[in-house]
Amino acid sequence: MRTTIGEFLLRRLKEVGVSEVIGVPGDFNLNWLEQIEAFDGVRFVGTCNELNAAYAVDGYARQRRLGALLTTYGVGELSALNGVAGAAAEHVPFISVAGAPPLFAIEYRYLVHHSLAEGNFDNMLAAFRPFTAAAVRLTPANAVVEIDRVISLAVRESLPVHIQVPSDITHLEVDVPDTPLDPELPTSDERRLADAVDATVAKLKDAKAPLVLVDQDAARHEFQQDLLTFVETTGVNYSQLPSGKAILPERHPQFIGTYNGKASAPGVQDRVETADFLLTTTPRFIEVNSGGFTHDLPEASVVNVGDQHVAVGGEFYVGINTREFFARLNEAVANLGKVAGDGEAKEEAQSAALPEVAEDFGGDKPLTHERIWNRFGAFIKEGDVVVAEAGTSNIGLGTQRFPDGVTYINSPIWGSIGFTLPATLGSMLAAEDRRHVLFIGDGSFQLTAQELSTMLRQDQKPIIVLLNNRGYTIERYILGMDREYNDIANWDYAGLPKVFDAETTMEALQARTEGELEDALAAIEKLDGEKGVFLEIHMDPEDAPAGLRAFGPQTADFDYGPLGPRNP
Amino acid sequence: MRTTIGEFLLRRLKEVGVSEVIGVPGDFNLNWLEQIEAFDGVRFVGTCNELNAAYAVDGYARQRRLGALLTTYGVGELSALNGVAGAAAEHVPFISVAGAPPLFAIEYRYLVHHSLAEGNFDNMLAAFRPFTAAAVRLTPANAVVEIDRVISLAVRESLPVHIQVPSDITHLEVDVPDTPLDPELPTSDERRLADAVDATVAKLKDAKAPLVLVDQDAARHEFQQDLLTFVETTGVNYSQLPSGKAILPERHPQFIGTYNGKASAPGVQDRVETADFLLTTTPRFIEVNSGGFTHDLPEASVVNVGDQHVAVGGEFYVGINTREFFARLNEAVANLGKVAGDGEAKEEAQSAALPEVAEDFGGDKPLTHERIWNRFGAFIKEGDVVVAEAGTSNIGLGTQRFPDGVTYINSPIWGSIGFTLPATLGSMLAAEDRRHVLFIGDGSFQLTAQELSTMLRQDQKPIIVLLNNRGYTIERYILGMDREYNDIANWDYAGLPKVFDAETTMEALQARTEGELEDALAAIEKLDGEKGVFLEIHMDPEDAPAGLRAFGPQTADFDYGPLGPRNP
Repeated sequence: MRTTIGEFLLRRLKEVGVSEVIGVPGDFNLNWLEQIEAFDGVRFVGTCNELNAAYAVDGYARQRRLGALLTTYGVGELSALNGVAGAAAEHVPFISVAGAPPLFAIEYRYLVHHSLAEGNFDNMLAAFRPFTAAAVRLTPANAVVEIDRVISLAVRESLPVHIQVPSDITHLEVDVPDTPLDPELPTSDERRLADAVDATVAKLKDAKAPLVLVDQDAARHEFQQDLLTFVETTGVNYSQLPSGKAILPERHPQFIGTYNGKASAPGVQDRVETADFLLTTTPRFIEVNSGGFTHDLPEASVVNVGDQHVAVGGEFYVGINTREFFARLNEAVANLGKVAGDGEAKEEAQSAALPEVAEDFGGDKPLTHERIWNRFGAFIKEGDVVVAEAGTSNIGLGTQRFPDGVTYINSPIWGSIGFTLPATLGSMLAAEDRRHVLFIGDGSFQLTAQELSTMLRQDQKPIIVLLNNRGYTIERYILGMDREYNDIANWDYAGLPKVFDAETTMEALQARTEGELEDALAAIEKLDGEKGVFLEIHMDPEDAPAGLRAFGPQTADFDYGPLGPRNP
Repeated sequence: MRTTIGEFLLRRLKEVGVSEVIGVPGDFNLNWLEQIEAFDGVRFVGTCNELNAAYAVDGYARQRRLGALLTTYGVGELSALNGVAGAAAEHVPFISVAGAPPLFAIEYRYLVHHSLAEGNFDNMLAAFRPFTAAAVRLTPANAVVEIDRVISLAVRESLPVHIQVPSDITHLEVDVPDTPLDPELPTSDERRLADAVDATVAKLKDAKAPLVLVDQDAARHEFQQDLLTFVETTGVNYSQLPSGKAILPERHPQFIGTYNGKASAPGVQDRVETADFLLTTTPRFIEVNSGGFTHDLPEASVVNVGDQHVAVGGEFYVGINTREFFARLNEAVANLGKVAGDGEAKEEAQSAALPEVAEDFGGDKPLTHERIWNRFGAFIKEGDVVVAEAGTSNIGLGTQRFPDGVTYINSPIWGSIGFTLPATLGSMLAAEDRRHVLFIGDGSFQLTAQELSTMLRQDQKPIIVLLNNRGYTIERYILGMDREYNDIANWDYAGLPKVFDAETTMEALQARTEGELEDALAAIEKLDGEKGVFLEIHMDPEDAPAGLRAFGPQTADFDYGPLGPRNP
């Protein structure tokens, strides 16, 4: 069949689950925006700027198989690059679409606006290449092949891709396939699949101390349900990395706690490092999820399930569709019955599962990190989407075991501050019926604050908890506790919703004490999602969760060398 | 002498005129921030995010010989890339400094936060390379050489450079030169210099219709005064490109108006295109300064003075220090006396020079583009810094001839919306005693709005004129006049100063009619710089300056091809 290039791209996006394209208009993409207007099933959501749009797309993609960004050439796409690179770091399926100058201007090297005015049109693609699985420019000749290739790549690899679409080709008709795009992995080589399953089962059968260790790729490649079936069928207990938080249920009796090298939950380090069968999902150990590189996996015991391979005790099985692998593995272990670990973790898991809110929480006691996170842990409900900004929020929530069905959105590796406000916007576009609770510090909030306006414009009703502690507290603990460079302006944050939307129904609340926080949380419960809430809580700039008190000096030692500065 | 690498970098920055480093802290740069705290003559100014910081550095560099940005690895530097690329497009001397992970982590390929966690540390530099004259990582071995090289490059080429500074090397001591850095161009090869001057003078002597055509490199390489001496000595008249606006005085009797291909001021196109001596400063013709590529310079008559060369009638003189060239040329023409053009432009220049504010301006007539720009033209004072955002502001102000001594800051080639608010912040840091007047549309303002907070924090007192026309009016005229994708949220802009700083003295004013605008401007005059002013003016979304009414459809024709969409 024949259709235009622009419509074909929209059809493909819709087929893989994208119903919102998020971005900022510019003259080189208005042409495609006209096609979006006319297309049934995909709409455009404008944000205030492109980096925020990219963060929103990342949040969107955490809920769907893919998120789609639209920017314009040069100024727009480069503004979004940090967000695209974040998707690369966190393994998020993401298509970045940039309108580009018309093809004749590119071919004949015109000097145009939004370029360096030197006739070079390869520099933007060059900048994207290190951060994407593909960065290409569409032409009428390659458009059909490239669109299918890059969308499949993004979904299969769970990585960003970038395409430039010259502004004069979207309305050209081309031959396109009738069939929908199937971006799934090819089926496995049957022999390698069978061998990988056999090797895994054999290793498991012999194990006395088996364990599963979850990291974020388990969610990115959608292994959660498979893994849960595996642990429940076999009785094998599981741990998670901080970067794999809440991918498997955290109040499950088989969950033994978080592994983080020497900073693991009590008893967990030893059990992970002495496991004689350790099923992993491509763990990536950076400073914050390895206890400062003190991790030590028992390599000979590891069965790693990657996105397209399985590695068992030094043997590397390629050509594996890992969804098939899990299906086959779970069939095999069903016959095996419980192998080990059943109940072993039950007691400790159950005692650790529920947050202990201090009995005397309330009154005019100032808010402290030591006490608020258990309170927020108790506030989180089954099925919530919890979004945690880098810094005290992510560290504080790391101590909490969430109820079932919670989706946890953070950026443990890339850690670009400001990410979470737009990411919440994007996640709410993708999963509008779920309650979203965002925890963000004031320093982070200021980077991307204007996107609160887009949330209101989209009639979203998030619960935003803003920790106002007058600056970059995580930095203070690393270096410069009292330095002005870690201070920021003190905004009237609670005044922002009305400035962004005079008619907003969003409730602006504030809390300085535990009693005020209790009142605010009670008010939120009472609103029951009818209105959004912007809750500003005031904290001491030098207060921090215990995790950060340890992490700060350790980071300074890592970063600055023996001659470098330290906090007094 | 011996000093630390971090201190040496600060010393060099100070030597070339940088007294503020602008940026955002992160753990990989706190070490250098400590050195800035201790250093006399350079201070750190924190902004809300990195892109805004980069824009501020660009604004700063328009007033100084160099501007300096500080970001952290990955998340920070990539967020700033669009601003750095803008400096490349607009030829602005700019040093981007990014803190990087410690050298051992780079050498041994640790997986660290703010990276893709795959042990690759070349990707960020790769992204910067297409947009910088140099993008390098410092080591103890190369630091002294590279610091001097990249600062000299940035100043000489008037382009951005990028350096990554590993967080563990700033406090190491190295041998450094005692002498201050001299980033000027080397002196010329005497023979080529003499020949270039002779060839230029010979061409000028024969000319019957000589002219000078100014573009932005004349300001970037600081030729303004040389050019003014040249035209006043010889009597040769001058024109400017829109991208060279106000570099030479616009109310000068020898200024004949703006050249922009077929969209030139009356009579100017013919005079430029038939000149028999045309001194240029590397003009770069893009859509908006060539009347849609209808420019046609008389190539055989061109004498182009580049940054390090002169080209006369097909001969290319390299090894030229162009400041020396001008000095020598101006000596030579002093002996020549007036050659041509003296007074020719006087009458037209003087009649066009002063803005004609409509006699009946005032009352309850709604604000229109047809009438406001002459009013604002009359408001601008000698010595002002006028900053104009891409879109209606830059187009509207393009019709005005500014008083002497006005510095005009815009981004005619890169045109990244949102640039001007942080650029004004940066320019005010660099030239705090000058009155700054910013004109910005609401669509642009929303991209970088939080930087108003930093202006207040720095106690700056700009005059900000925000044109609230409910969206992207420049896009509307290109495509989608009534489309939602060109709409934005309508903020209570005038409420922002108080939200950002409860104690601010900034006056928030609004105007919907000509009478209200008169009152507001009178109030501003009365304040006389004692307070900053945020003046929101309300405009019809479909109103536009005449220039945009022509530019819109022309851009659609250029961008979308014969099958692409057009406004009805």
